[in-house]
Amino acid sequence: TSQHSTAATGDEFCAEARRRADYLASSRPTAVNLTWALERCIARACRAAASGASVANLKEALLSEGLDILHEDIELCQSIGRHGVSLFQGRTSVGVLTHCNAGALATGGIGTATAGMYVAHAAGHEFTVYCDETRPLLQGSRLTAWELNRAGIDAVVITDNMSAQVMREGKVAMVITGADRIAANGDAANKIGTYGVAIAARHHGIPFYVAAPYSTFDLDLPSGDSIPIELRGSEEITEGFGRRTAPHDIKTYSPAFDVTPAELITAIITDRGVIDPVNTENVSRIVGP
Amino acid sequence: TSQHSTAATGDEFCAEARRRADYLASSRPTAVNLTWALERCIARACRAAASGASVANLKEALLSEGLDILHEDIELCQSIGRHGVSLFQGRTSVGVLTHCNAGALATGGIGTATAGMYVAHAAGHEFTVYCDETRPLLQGSRLTAWELNRAGIDAVVITDNMSAQVMREGKVAMVITGADRIAANGDAANKIGTYGVAIAARHHGIPFYVAAPYSTFDLDLPSGDSIPIELRGSEEITEGFGRRTAPHDIKTYSPAFDVTPAELITAIITDRGVIDPVNTENVSRIVGP
Repeated sequence: TSQHSTAATGDEFCAEARRRADYLASSRPTAVNLTWALERCIARACRAAASGASVANLKEALLSEGLDILHEDIELCQSIGRHGVSLFQGRTSVGVLTHCNAGALATGGIGTATAGMYVAHAAGHEFTVYCDETRPLLQGSRLTAWELNRAGIDAVVITDNMSAQVMREGKVAMVITGADRIAANGDAANKIGTYGVAIAARHHGIPFYVAAPYSTFDLDLPSGDSIPIELRGSEEITEGFGRRTAPHDIKTYSPAFDVTPAELITAIITDRGVIDPVNTENVSRIVGP
Repeated sequence: TSQHSTAATGDEFCAEARRRADYLASSRPTAVNLTWALERCIARACRAAASGASVANLKEALLSEGLDILHEDIELCQSIGRHGVSLFQGRTSVGVLTHCNAGALATGGIGTATAGMYVAHAAGHEFTVYCDETRPLLQGSRLTAWELNRAGIDAVVITDNMSAQVMREGKVAMVITGADRIAANGDAANKIGTYGVAIAARHHGIPFYVAAPYSTFDLDLPSGDSIPIELRGSEEITEGFGRRTAPHDIKTYSPAFDVTPAELITAIITDRGVIDPVNTENVSRIVGP
C-alpha cells in the first residue's frame, strides 16, 4: 500500500504508514509475528524520516526492510530445521502428528513445525505425518497435507477428534506444532485444538514440541494468561464448506486460538537453539535480549 | 423387508430373515444395540417357526417384537433420564458438553446422553449444552444441536478441537456422552473423539459420564480391547460437505469409533441405576444377568 501513498512529506508518509500498519495488525490479535514485522518496517521508515529522507526514499526503505525480513525468515526456518532434524535422527518409520499449518505456506522458508520434517526428508529419514484437518478453516488438510505431499513426505489427513485415538494406537512418536505467540515462561498460543492435542500427548507419554523463531516470543508477557484469544464469527462453524451444517438459529462459540501451558510442552525448537525444559530461565537464556 | 418376503414356509422365512439381519448387523460392527435388537427379533420369529407358525404369523411376530423393543426403548430412555437428572439438581446455569448424537433422533425416546437434559429442562433447570460438531459426519451440529434447540434447551455448537479450550475457560461442569458398546469392565466404545474429550475432562478435573441402557453392555467382552473399531472411507474426510477439502491424492485414516477406558469414566448412567465407580463388579451388579 505504501507504493500508492500521496503523502507530501516524510512525516505525513510515516503517519499514514503507521495507520495502515495498525489496521493490518488488528487482523491478528493473537499472533505476534505480524506485529513484530510491521513494527520493524515502521521503525525503519520513521528513523529515515526523522533524518530528512524524501518520501521516495522512505518507500525504498520500507521495501528494503520487508525484503530483509523475508530473507531473515528463510534463514530462521533453516535454523529451526537444523535443530528440529535431531528429533528424527536414529529413528525409523516414525509417526509425527501436527496441527494446523506452520509450514512453507505460512512462512518465507521451509516453515517452523515442518522445518525439521523437510530437513529430515532431505536427509533420507522415513516418517509419516498425521495432519489434523484443523477445523474450522482446515489449514491442516488444505495446506499442510498439500505441501508435505507435494514434497514427497508421507502425509495422512485425520479429523481433529481422531488424534487421541491415533496416539492410543501407537502411531505417533511425537507431536510438532508451530506457535502464534509464546510468553516469557514458554506458554504457547497456537491454532485452536493445539491445547487438546498437547493434553492427549501428555496422557499417552508422547513428547510435544513447539517450533518457532525468536520473533514469536513476546517476552513482555510473563505467562500465556494475558495472550488475547481472537473470537471468530459463527459462519466458519455453521457453513464453513459452502453448505449449511448446523441449524439456522443455533448459537456457536468460536475461539480461534488456545494457549498450551509450558508444563505440557516437552521442548521449544527455535532458530537459536532448543529450550528444554521449558521455563522462564531457559526461554530467557535462548531467546532473551 | 420382511413384508415383501416370498418365503413359502416358516423355515424359509426364518432363514431369509437371518440373512437380512446379518446384513443389517454388518453395517455397524462397533455398536451392539442393533445386533441385540436384531437377535431379539430373529429369536422370536424362529421360536414361532419351530412351533409351526405360518409365514403370515411370523411377519406379525417380527413386527410385534420390533414394537416391543420400541416401547421398551422409550421406557429405557425415561429411566436413564430419571437417573441422569440428578446431575443437574442443586446446580444453576451449568455447562454440559456432549459429543455426537445420543439423543431422541438416535433412540425411540428421549435419548441416552440427552435423557437427563430433557428431564432437567422439563423440571425447570437452566443449563447450556456445548455440542461438539463431531466430524466427519457432524452428528453434533446436525442432530444434537437441532433437537436440543428445538426443545428450547440452550445449545452451542463448537468444533471438536474447541472442547479442551471451552473446559479450560470454566464453561463445562460435566461431560455426558452415549456409548455404542460397553465391555464388562466399563470400557465404552463411542463415536470417534469421545476418548479425547474424556482425556481433556480428566485433565481439567471435570466429571465424564456415559449414559446407556443395559442393552449397550456386551458382558461377553472382558474389556474394550476386543471391541472392533469400524474404519471408514476417505471421502467423509476429504469431501464430507460436497466440496473437496483435501488434496486429491492424499492418504487418510478414519476410525469411526474409539474406546474410552473405564478409568476415565466417572460413572455410567443406565436405566437400571448408576454404575459408580466404574468397574467389573459394579457393572455386573447393576446390569448383570
